[in-house]
Amino acid sequence: MSKGVTPKSENYSKWYTDVITKAELADYGPVKGTMVIRPYGYQIWENLKDRLDIEFKKTGHVNGYFPLFIPKSFLAKEAEHVEGFAKECAIVTHSRLKNNDDKTDLIPDPESKLEEEIIVRPTSETVIWSMYKKWIKSHRDLPILMNQWANVVRWEMRTRLFLRTSEFLWQEGHTAHSTENEAKEETLKILTIYKEVVEGMLGIPVICGTKTDAEKFAGAETTYCIESMMGDKRALQAGTSHYLGQNFAKAFNVKFQDSDNTEKYVYATSWGVSTRLIGALIMVHGDDKGLRLPPNIAPIQIVFVPIYKTDEDYQKIKDYLSSILTYCENNHIRYKLDNREKLSPGYKFNEWEMKGVPIRVEVGPRDLADGNITIVRRDNFEKTIEKIDTIESKIINILEDIQNSLFNNALKFQNENTHQVQNYEEFKTIINTGGFIKCGWDGNPQTEAKIKSETNATIRCIPMNQEFDNLNCIYSSKPAKYQVIFAKAY
Amino acid sequence: MSKGVTPKSENYSKWYTDVITKAELADYGPVKGTMVIRPYGYQIWENLKDRLDIEFKKTGHVNGYFPLFIPKSFLAKEAEHVEGFAKECAIVTHSRLKNNDDKTDLIPDPESKLEEEIIVRPTSETVIWSMYKKWIKSHRDLPILMNQWANVVRWEMRTRLFLRTSEFLWQEGHTAHSTENEAKEETLKILTIYKEVVEGMLGIPVICGTKTDAEKFAGAETTYCIESMMGDKRALQAGTSHYLGQNFAKAFNVKFQDSDNTEKYVYATSWGVSTRLIGALIMVHGDDKGLRLPPNIAPIQIVFVPIYKTDEDYQKIKDYLSSILTYCENNHIRYKLDNREKLSPGYKFNEWEMKGVPIRVEVGPRDLADGNITIVRRDNFEKTIEKIDTIESKIINILEDIQNSLFNNALKFQNENTHQVQNYEEFKTIINTGGFIKCGWDGNPQTEAKIKSETNATIRCIPMNQEFDNLNCIYSSKPAKYQVIFAKAY
Repeated sequence: MSKGVTPKSENYSKWYTDVITKAELADYGPVKGTMVIRPYGYQIWENLKDRLDIEFKKTGHVNGYFPLFIPKSFLAKEAEHVEGFAKECAIVTHSRLKNNDDKTDLIPDPESKLEEEIIVRPTSETVIWSMYKKWIKSHRDLPILMNQWANVVRWEMRTRLFLRTSEFLWQEGHTAHSTENEAKEETLKILTIYKEVVEGMLGIPVICGTKTDAEKFAGAETTYCIESMMGDKRALQAGTSHYLGQNFAKAFNVKFQDSDNTEKYVYATSWGVSTRLIGALIMVHGDDKGLRLPPNIAPIQIVFVPIYKTDEDYQKIKDYLSSILTYCENNHIRYKLDNREKLSPGYKFNEWEMKGVPIRVEVGPRDLADGNITIVRRDNFEKTIEKIDTIESKIINILEDIQNSLFNNALKFQNENTHQVQNYEEFKTIINTGGFIKCGWDGNPQTEAKIKSETNATIRCIPMNQEFDNLNCIYSSKPAKYQVIFAKAY
Repeated sequence: MSKGVTPKSENYSKWYTDVITKAELADYGPVKGTMVIRPYGYQIWENLKDRLDIEFKKTGHVNGYFPLFIPKSFLAKEAEHVEGFAKECAIVTHSRLKNNDDKTDLIPDPESKLEEEIIVRPTSETVIWSMYKKWIKSHRDLPILMNQWANVVRWEMRTRLFLRTSEFLWQEGHTAHSTENEAKEETLKILTIYKEVVEGMLGIPVICGTKTDAEKFAGAETTYCIESMMGDKRALQAGTSHYLGQNFAKAFNVKFQDSDNTEKYVYATSWGVSTRLIGALIMVHGDDKGLRLPPNIAPIQIVFVPIYKTDEDYQKIKDYLSSILTYCENNHIRYKLDNREKLSPGYKFNEWEMKGVPIRVEVGPRDLADGNITIVRRDNFEKTIEKIDTIESKIINILEDIQNSLFNNALKFQNENTHQVQNYEEFKTIINTGGFIKCGWDGNPQTEAKIKSETNATIRCIPMNQEFDNLNCIYSSKPAKYQVIFAKAY
């Protein structure tokens, strides 16, 4: 492990990239805008994926796989959808390379030019609804509750690892229902799963709400979202669940025969979270020593670092630890015994701090003599000496305490940086220093657009459970239609 | 469930597609050559994936993710590799769509033309070795034992679901080693995993061997493979494990400082299996009633079909079954109680036969009175009446017996259709009627090419553990260098 990371306070963006590089989470790929997810980063994704997959299956969803390639014409079938996705997509035009005339280079073979160009999926509504058209005839074919784990591509020139890359990994659920109500319930059921997993596993507090028309998914009736606050007080959209109404069913002419023998268009939802959540995880919990991982998501929850000079000493430490290691094994605690040779304990401490392992256990010759082990928490660097005989009963509590503590700190930070403001001047001052602003909005898209152009802040969401009295729009001073959250966002 | 499938004997290829369609395993996607994997097919893939992933992790491998997009120039870096993969690839040339002049269509925006074209990965050696170049400096960085679960694209005009589609899902392992020996051991270690999983889980007997130079992976020193025989006696390559020597290390200039302080090129392997295995599963075990799934891979191992007229009767049957259902639950037996309304038992029987569920349990009012349940095996349609009180102790044995029986039948079929021939005339006769031919080959690529052009048969593999006396080449009659397996292949 080379030097540490750029301090957050000095350059937040550089700090972020440093943590990713030094914790070996990801790297830049050779094509501009692409990302390589390294094993440590991928293990975080796998843990999240496994958990979400369980939740989806528990609620009756099944996985499948739809093609990467979409005919160009499909993108244009839903009017808003094409506006949203045609501007940044990868277009396949040829199917073969050949040598150029002087054999110095490979060029696309003109004879392999495709009749219709193909789009690399930016999202799969269109290709999926073209299939649902084939599969849905009757109300007995509904609901369809499908999800896929896949890669998607949206052309991006300004790359930021995990947050903004041309290709990213995600899950996308696409469901089809016979009634509006059932589809709306599905949308909210998924939003609840997202909230519970992001808060409970990643320790990231979120605000649930709906997007304004300007910010919603291109093709949705309503976009529900979970929004979170990053360490630099900017907002990040952590997940979305869209109620699509009959828009895609109409675009692809998907009707079903209902039990009353009438033909109706199918109701739809779609929803997704992506590897972007790993970016949020870094920004919400990371510090100037690197990552801090909540135990529920951490690939390694406890690292044991033996401190020894001779092989004989190492063997004694290993024996000394055998009971606690067995305990970890039996209780599905993800641990590592770092017995790498030729690396000093100090080097190891730094590395595991950088990688955010929640608990470090240090054991040296003196600990053996005293029946102790030394425990260092990554979240607050608290160091305690515990008796080896009683540690088993405490270890799960410490992990839980770290999990809760990271969440509570993030929640406190979010609350402290969420402001109610009296007037637009105050709004502009606070938006510039960072944070969320909770205020009234008259519901007029023009007001929203003006605030965005003047301050770069957008309405992140209209929180659920609106309750307010005598609230006026922060910009127009007209009576507020909604209380909303404004912020600058990733 | 509509009518059955085309009989195998009538049209094998149509039978295959019928089974896929009617068992709802997959469907054609809208872009020519693409495939949709439906939930029932995807569950088979998930079961296989989960098992392989466990085996890879047990042997020290970790997952990661590399980009879909590869710079065109990378493909050309390894001389053989480019020959193998440039001819059938998807080429991205533009990054934005715009309206045409009269706004009737979307066209690739000429201003978004890429400076260098991008290839959608047909396999990831090049992009991965460009990253290993960044990560590997010293022998302490080795070995790297990475795998990824990903989609890849190879342009195909003649689509055959699961077997030959433009896009398919696979895993690709890419490892880097400091010694030749270690890399070779890795190649064989993986081959063994493939053999064990394909035989033990999918019930498909395989022959392990190496490919000839003409048939090996473009860029490999040696390609090891597992070859299997389909129901129409043609061969299918079920998995490959490549020893790449230093070819990619040299192409990407990846050297490491060894412990003796000298600089050396890194040794490499790569290996993969794909969704093509689902095609093999169908062809090896399927019959004229549809799929027959070995229990170890089946998404549903036992389906319970209650036979009843009134809700009250159904409730009685459910109570009657509760103990065996609990037993299945506790013993991780994947079961389904088919309580769908308005469908006759006969309809359900046909559907689950088509879907290849290994055991069907039928329970009607008379069974209740007698304390019986009726068990029907999908592999041989054997119907037995068992006492409900003692069924728990037998059920796992029946599943094991089906697993073994399907494997043994496939092995018998393979052995019966593997021929030793005396001369080339006999070779040609047998190759035309189908099957494997085991014979001598002089090791000359020209002999191999001539046989291929005259008979369409290729050398599927040079089996491991060569042991033969006085064997001559089937074509040239010169002394044989190897005993090989010839067949027509998918």
